[in-house]
Amino acid sequence: MAGTLWSGPGHQTTETPAPPDAPSRLFMPHKVRIALDAMGGDFGPSVIVPGAQVSLDHHPGIEFLLFGDRAAIEPLLNQRPQLKAASRVIHTDVAISMNAKPSQALRQGRWKSSMSLAIDAVKRGEADLAVSAGNTGALMALAKFQLKTMPGIDRPAIAARWPTVRGASIVLDLGASIGADAAHLVDLAVMGSAMARVLFGRERPTVGLLNIGVEEVKGLEEVREAGAILRARNLPFLDYVGFVEGDDIGKGAVDVVVTEGFAGNIALKAAEGTARQIAQVLKEAMGRTVWSKLGYLLSRGAFRALADRTDPRKANGGVFLGLNGIVIKSHGGTDAEGFAYAVNMGYDMIRHDLLARIGETLTRESPDELPPRLIGGTRS
Amino acid sequence: MAGTLWSGPGHQTTETPAPPDAPSRLFMPHKVRIALDAMGGDFGPSVIVPGAQVSLDHHPGIEFLLFGDRAAIEPLLNQRPQLKAASRVIHTDVAISMNAKPSQALRQGRWKSSMSLAIDAVKRGEADLAVSAGNTGALMALAKFQLKTMPGIDRPAIAARWPTVRGASIVLDLGASIGADAAHLVDLAVMGSAMARVLFGRERPTVGLLNIGVEEVKGLEEVREAGAILRARNLPFLDYVGFVEGDDIGKGAVDVVVTEGFAGNIALKAAEGTARQIAQVLKEAMGRTVWSKLGYLLSRGAFRALADRTDPRKANGGVFLGLNGIVIKSHGGTDAEGFAYAVNMGYDMIRHDLLARIGETLTRESPDELPPRLIGGTRS
Repeated sequence: MAGTLWSGPGHQTTETPAPPDAPSRLFMPHKVRIALDAMGGDFGPSVIVPGAQVSLDHHPGIEFLLFGDRAAIEPLLNQRPQLKAASRVIHTDVAISMNAKPSQALRQGRWKSSMSLAIDAVKRGEADLAVSAGNTGALMALAKFQLKTMPGIDRPAIAARWPTVRGASIVLDLGASIGADAAHLVDLAVMGSAMARVLFGRERPTVGLLNIGVEEVKGLEEVREAGAILRARNLPFLDYVGFVEGDDIGKGAVDVVVTEGFAGNIALKAAEGTARQIAQVLKEAMGRTVWSKLGYLLSRGAFRALADRTDPRKANGGVFLGLNGIVIKSHGGTDAEGFAYAVNMGYDMIRHDLLARIGETLTRESPDELPPRLIGGTRS
Repeated sequence: MAGTLWSGPGHQTTETPAPPDAPSRLFMPHKVRIALDAMGGDFGPSVIVPGAQVSLDHHPGIEFLLFGDRAAIEPLLNQRPQLKAASRVIHTDVAISMNAKPSQALRQGRWKSSMSLAIDAVKRGEADLAVSAGNTGALMALAKFQLKTMPGIDRPAIAARWPTVRGASIVLDLGASIGADAAHLVDLAVMGSAMARVLFGRERPTVGLLNIGVEEVKGLEEVREAGAILRARNLPFLDYVGFVEGDDIGKGAVDVVVTEGFAGNIALKAAEGTARQIAQVLKEAMGRTVWSKLGYLLSRGAFRALADRTDPRKANGGVFLGLNGIVIKSHGGTDAEGFAYAVNMGYDMIRHDLLARIGETLTRESPDELPPRLIGGTRS
């Protein structure tokens, strides 16, 4: 299946009818145009350009707009004639540093920097989505300022695929904003389930609200209230199943895990850190004796399967949801292969019309259907 | 080192002079008396009593008070003469169910249930600490009500050992309360570092505040403010090093990781879930071919090392901090070995006088030394 980022069983992208991504253009219903911030990330064009090539190999229908320093980009393009033919370079001298604060990015980088110009291409309809490996705070600030939030959405969110034993789930918010009232949690459920419909091909993805098992009088009203709203609305495009806990994420208990951005970001990084930590302990242990080294050689296939299932590059790509346009944040330190995963996820979302799916759900959510108490209590 | 729960390098309990925990009583400076809620957990006495035996094997100086149903406890004690000699059974018919709400536990279980009586033994000085595998919400509610918070501490916290590549760190709060203002985060730093001094033998443990890398205008004021207070106070018993992110926990970047209870609980469970998930994927992959099965056999030692380092039983034991007495929550579903880890951690903390260490830090923290702006701004 073209563009599937996750190779495990369980969730799979379904695309009907499936146009084979063969080099022939006969089967391409339409081109997907992707704006790349070529200067973003720890390595700039030296990762972004080869990454674009990897994506193009998967999806020959992509066209790239590369924003950044022409002198740095063009030599890399000249080595890749196929990519060069599919790309246009738009020069700018300005690049936003990985350490810039969002306010600095807005002041100094707006309409000038490679990042801002890539987002602007989405706004003006010249590109279907923008991808940047630049700094998250700056990217979110510029994306919010330039694209604005969708009608009915107050605050944007960052969503990502989280590898599970069943395949993958969508988890959001991963740090676009801190704290969430019940209404925002409901918005997150709507946006996340639209993304799950697109990426997993589920008609009605299951949604869980992240909560803690400890009974506590104070502090979780918003999560409980969001649960009550989701149950009352019984939305056509999502199946709200209740609360889930931190250890349910990796089990793949639900397609979409909804939480507030601070806890979501910390959970994601704690899980990533644990995976790296286990890999390190195992590697050390396997190298300790001749027998374990031999054992490693014999089981290489198993280790390759594990590495493949836990490859952080495959989970690369934080999707900014809730804006009038799709922006994807790639890890700053990833390689070309990892960057391509972020681009390919964007490609999938365009091909399956993510924004229309979110809009569809929001439109169907007529406020008249809601019990008045719940409306008054949550949307301020 | 007797009673050390974590066998990795890095952090180690140091005890000077170290009394060898030999069966001889000559070297026992004093007995440690531990009150056990014998009815707590998914399995009640059938895990608690054998667990007590495992602890006694490690620390022959322990005396147990076993609260619960005499008819269920005594047959198990009769099979263990050594434990029987070191134990006293206090009968009660009342046990708090694993599903009881905290309010129910307070109403129906106070002064009657095995859980409440175990805590009461601590309050009356008959036991040095209480251990229960019963439900967390009920245990916290009863412990708070019966023991009250220490002078200078507003809200209790739950702390636990988190296995890292360097050994282990203390992480708190894991869900005793939701949300935290700057003053509470500072309290958590003080309590967590006292625990690290006791368990890791560090003079001045390093402390980090858990934060997210995403720059955001709103929402993190309390974390930033707590950082400013910790820097300004420059406390004698802790070394505040700044913010850490979710993936720094597993790296062992600091001895003590401080965060608010909702995010802390979710991070812990997400990390535990990831560890289980990786073990499952690896197990499946290793069983897939004859070669990988043979490889597994040859590398058994390495897998045993990994299992040992990531054994959730070794991280068992959530310590309730900030109360006038020590209460430890064991996982409800753990086995005798796991329950013993929780008991042994409590033993270590008594032997090193945890409460006095917390009090010491709180007393030295004279408010006169603080810049007035910070005091006014944080402690409400």
